[in-house]
Amino acid sequence: MGDLLLRGGRPWGMPRPADIWIRDDRIQNVGEQLTVPGADVLDIHGHVVLPGLVDAHCHLDKTLYGGPWVPHSADDTLAGRMANDLRRRSELGIPSTERITALLRRMSACGTTHVRTHTDIDPEVGLRGVEAVQEAAAQVPVEVQQVAFPQHGLLTRPGTAELLEEALKAGVRAVGGIDPAGIDGDPVRHLDVIFGMAERHGAHVDIHLHDPGTLGAWELGLIIERTRTLGLAGRVTVSHAYAFGQIGEAEQRRLADGLAEAGIAIATAAVYSFPVPPVKTLRQAGVTVACGHDGIRDLWGPYGGGDMLERAMHLAYRSTFRRDEDIELALSAATYGGAAALGLPDYGLAPGCRADLVAVAASCPAEAVVTRPPRSWVIRDGVVVHSS
Amino acid sequence: MGDLLLRGGRPWGMPRPADIWIRDDRIQNVGEQLTVPGADVLDIHGHVVLPGLVDAHCHLDKTLYGGPWVPHSADDTLAGRMANDLRRRSELGIPSTERITALLRRMSACGTTHVRTHTDIDPEVGLRGVEAVQEAAAQVPVEVQQVAFPQHGLLTRPGTAELLEEALKAGVRAVGGIDPAGIDGDPVRHLDVIFGMAERHGAHVDIHLHDPGTLGAWELGLIIERTRTLGLAGRVTVSHAYAFGQIGEAEQRRLADGLAEAGIAIATAAVYSFPVPPVKTLRQAGVTVACGHDGIRDLWGPYGGGDMLERAMHLAYRSTFRRDEDIELALSAATYGGAAALGLPDYGLAPGCRADLVAVAASCPAEAVVTRPPRSWVIRDGVVVHSS
Repeated sequence: MGDLLLRGGRPWGMPRPADIWIRDDRIQNVGEQLTVPGADVLDIHGHVVLPGLVDAHCHLDKTLYGGPWVPHSADDTLAGRMANDLRRRSELGIPSTERITALLRRMSACGTTHVRTHTDIDPEVGLRGVEAVQEAAAQVPVEVQQVAFPQHGLLTRPGTAELLEEALKAGVRAVGGIDPAGIDGDPVRHLDVIFGMAERHGAHVDIHLHDPGTLGAWELGLIIERTRTLGLAGRVTVSHAYAFGQIGEAEQRRLADGLAEAGIAIATAAVYSFPVPPVKTLRQAGVTVACGHDGIRDLWGPYGGGDMLERAMHLAYRSTFRRDEDIELALSAATYGGAAALGLPDYGLAPGCRADLVAVAASCPAEAVVTRPPRSWVIRDGVVVHSS
Repeated sequence: MGDLLLRGGRPWGMPRPADIWIRDDRIQNVGEQLTVPGADVLDIHGHVVLPGLVDAHCHLDKTLYGGPWVPHSADDTLAGRMANDLRRRSELGIPSTERITALLRRMSACGTTHVRTHTDIDPEVGLRGVEAVQEAAAQVPVEVQQVAFPQHGLLTRPGTAELLEEALKAGVRAVGGIDPAGIDGDPVRHLDVIFGMAERHGAHVDIHLHDPGTLGAWELGLIIERTRTLGLAGRVTVSHAYAFGQIGEAEQRRLADGLAEAGIAIATAAVYSFPVPPVKTLRQAGVTVACGHDGIRDLWGPYGGGDMLERAMHLAYRSTFRRDEDIELALSAATYGGAAALGLPDYGLAPGCRADLVAVAASCPAEAVVTRPPRSWVIRDGVVVHSS
């Protein structure tokens, strides 16, 4: 450790190139022409510096990354994909610490420093996914936050709630949910169970909501109500929230105001052709918007490469963002927005922040999203963990 | 020239690895364990071999590729983008032979061997775009087919039709159109002018159709009618055709049957969040589906990298294609479908075809689309034009 000086890059948000002085695991100072006697110096002229990328929504435990190609074998229905997952995961050795480690290494090399991953928990797999993710995370310089996730149903799959509770007792710090109406069939009870656990364990909540249109919008209302009542502002995220893209603009604004007031974040992965929540409307209302990959090379779909700049591109592209400041909204979701949703302290490029950074050869952040060059330097807790 | 033997790759469509014997600019034979005394041998074990990628819809003349980053400066309306284009193109030196050449070199390195590009023609720019594209194309091993394109209106911009005619006389072999209703305001006359030119010059037709829903669907009917009447089967393409994604399934099937019977191709770029034509429905009806980039790094939008495997990924992804055979439908649009739309003779991997090939490190074509590895070898007319 000691002093490290990044010379001549363009920290995101600064009007001109500036040096970044890192001491141990913290940013000590940011400014022009810094002098730090005895510091190691990295010349990063021509590079944009971003805070470490945050993948706020993925499924590490399911991944087949790094192994041989596995052709997708499910039919085109959600029920088909769920059944296929249950049928094939053990045959394919999922969850696999080796595969998860391979993916985390790739993510790290792409500049990701923090990940929130939804780990399947059900009576069949038990807590093996949680353990595999923990084992993998211990080997890679990425901070991994797990969500205890009832992928195959909470109320409909007896024994799952007890296992989620067990995971929370064992140190998992967030509890998940999934389509309280569309999959679990009883939105009020589903949400009461989850929010009850969050309250008992001081846990975060992160709910998968694919339920469409007015149904999904109504469920968002239930989530707002519970978050307010329990005072969980800043600790609740709704993931996907496709419904947002399927309702009128007035209703979008009304719901955005409700989320902002309750302190609920939206996480989106901009997947396939599913509706993308209206990033600009949400940000204007003051809602935290985070971005993630969703599944990467797994039984649910073959896509994904672990690069959050590519994911930010997908979000910007699907949002029809063309101007630099708009593209930066998507990048913000893959950085600051994710950090806020995950509750990361001391995140960013200001003095005092943890020294988690990535430098890419680009003239501005929007160009970095569009061109996605190799990450020249990735720094985690003040240490260069990747360079190319 | 002479004999070149590609040893041990997996030609797309073959059940097992096979050798490809190239003599001069043609594929001489494809089979297991070929013996060709005196041939140069390339060991391509572990590689999938695809026919040269075909970008069936782009706008080379507009590109800023290879130059400094230009922040997008138009507002969010189509009228705003059109006005911004007219205002800024000369300031930025567009069309630029240098920029077009840079982009074509990138496309070639990504395995593209054939391109159809829509070149702006209007009273202000005249035929300078056509000439710039010709000059650039002469420097790069990519076959470029131009469409004389009335980007800023045909009937609404007097003098444009005469310039299109001039371009066709000067050797441009396809005539374009754009939103006969939504932009040009008179669908019947717009189409009559274009189809009249096509008839007089034996030219192909390729019409941009962004007009939505029932309006666009009705215009597709007009195009089918004219294509049939003039016997232009195999020589007409409708690009984008967003309307297809906005009408009911029965109407989609009815229109697809009409297109198939008339011999009209659909070209899609799967851009932003615009509706993607239903690839599977179209292919099932027998319609040729092609794929292209649309604009790449230009005043209309900052995205695009020139890689048709990435474009095929976007098409597959937006079509929610997960299974290998579905992903291959998207890849087919970026290869065989494009070749059919462009009317390329002797295209493919069979003996007798032109030796335009690309080899990528992947176990199957679907993996190549998902992972998009560097192109290990690109072969054009029997010559290795790129290797990495």
